[in-house]
Amino acid sequence: MTQETTQAAGRPRNAEASDALKREALRLVREQGYGVSIAAIIKAAGVSRQTLYNRWSTKAELLLDALFELADMQVAIPDLSQPGPRRAVLTTYMREVFHHVRKDADLLRIFISQAQSDPAFRAVLYDRFVEPRDLIVVDVLRDAQARGEIAQDRDPALISAMIHGAFWYRLLLDLPLDDDFAAALVEDAFRGAA
Amino acid sequence: MTQETTQAAGRPRNAEASDALKREALRLVREQGYGVSIAAIIKAAGVSRQTLYNRWSTKAELLLDALFELADMQVAIPDLSQPGPRRAVLTTYMREVFHHVRKDADLLRIFISQAQSDPAFRAVLYDRFVEPRDLIVVDVLRDAQARGEIAQDRDPALISAMIHGAFWYRLLLDLPLDDDFAAALVEDAFRGAA
Repeated sequence: MTQETTQAAGRPRNAEASDALKREALRLVREQGYGVSIAAIIKAAGVSRQTLYNRWSTKAELLLDALFELADMQVAIPDLSQPGPRRAVLTTYMREVFHHVRKDADLLRIFISQAQSDPAFRAVLYDRFVEPRDLIVVDVLRDAQARGEIAQDRDPALISAMIHGAFWYRLLLDLPLDDDFAAALVEDAFRGAA
Repeated sequence: MTQETTQAAGRPRNAEASDALKREALRLVREQGYGVSIAAIIKAAGVSRQTLYNRWSTKAELLLDALFELADMQVAIPDLSQPGPRRAVLTTYMREVFHHVRKDADLLRIFISQAQSDPAFRAVLYDRFVEPRDLIVVDVLRDAQARGEIAQDRDPALISAMIHGAFWYRLLLDLPLDDDFAAALVEDAFRGAA
């Protein structure tokens, strides 16, 4: 990448170097596990160590940025300014999340596994990856509750923990994460509305 | 253990050797992680390799037996022949489970982490440890449903997956697993009964 003499418009050289680092970091983690070295990542990306450290202070931060920006993980955040039942919105969202998680299940397993023996990584994984996704679902549930689609005495944060928990449980045990399961979780969350 | 010349009544020598193997296996996994060797385990237990293989064909099976029989993991299975509301039964059960899980959280993290890179271990962990605990909760929920404490249109298997999922989610992210969380999960499962 950095050897190219022409640059695409709006793609400065350091953005291309960052993209290469993220892409190669994920590829190497998939192949070799979390223990892959910084040296191997910069070699594969064809950039200097300084280029990496200009943007990320640790391998964990590079990997989490890469995971976060992975095209396959990009599920559109539900647009709550639109009308329409939130149950359908959340069903569509969870089905898309499950679809992308299935495709990158091995990578997510490696990250969650690493988090078990590495408290600093666990904290960053939570702050950067888990909590933002939790809050997206909480926002949809709160909006549904305000619209009367979910009973007033339910706790959106608890429902979100159960939905995400059930999803992790199935991911980590290699059980099916399919459209039916997504719909069943959302159906249970919305049942018995006021 | 095997050097002792007197045996407690009803405790044959091979039972003592098995207890020593399970105890030392868990101690070493806590200290060194899942990668601890069979050689280190039999040395610490003071038994021969053959003694181990007489009973267990793999390290995974020894470790799962040890985890399963660990005194701290022994939570009494709810007695559904007794009268009384199942909501209280399940709240007490989940609080006890959380209490013991908190004490052995590091060990469970090591097992779940190992299961991510080792499909055979994952299958045995599921069959021996996860599924039996899942079915205990499903049984209580089904009984509650038969008694009218849970609405007829709920799916006990889905509720159990959400309860266990939420518990794994919190365990793996090092979030609180306390009495209040146990009660909130059960309260949500039982809300809006027929």
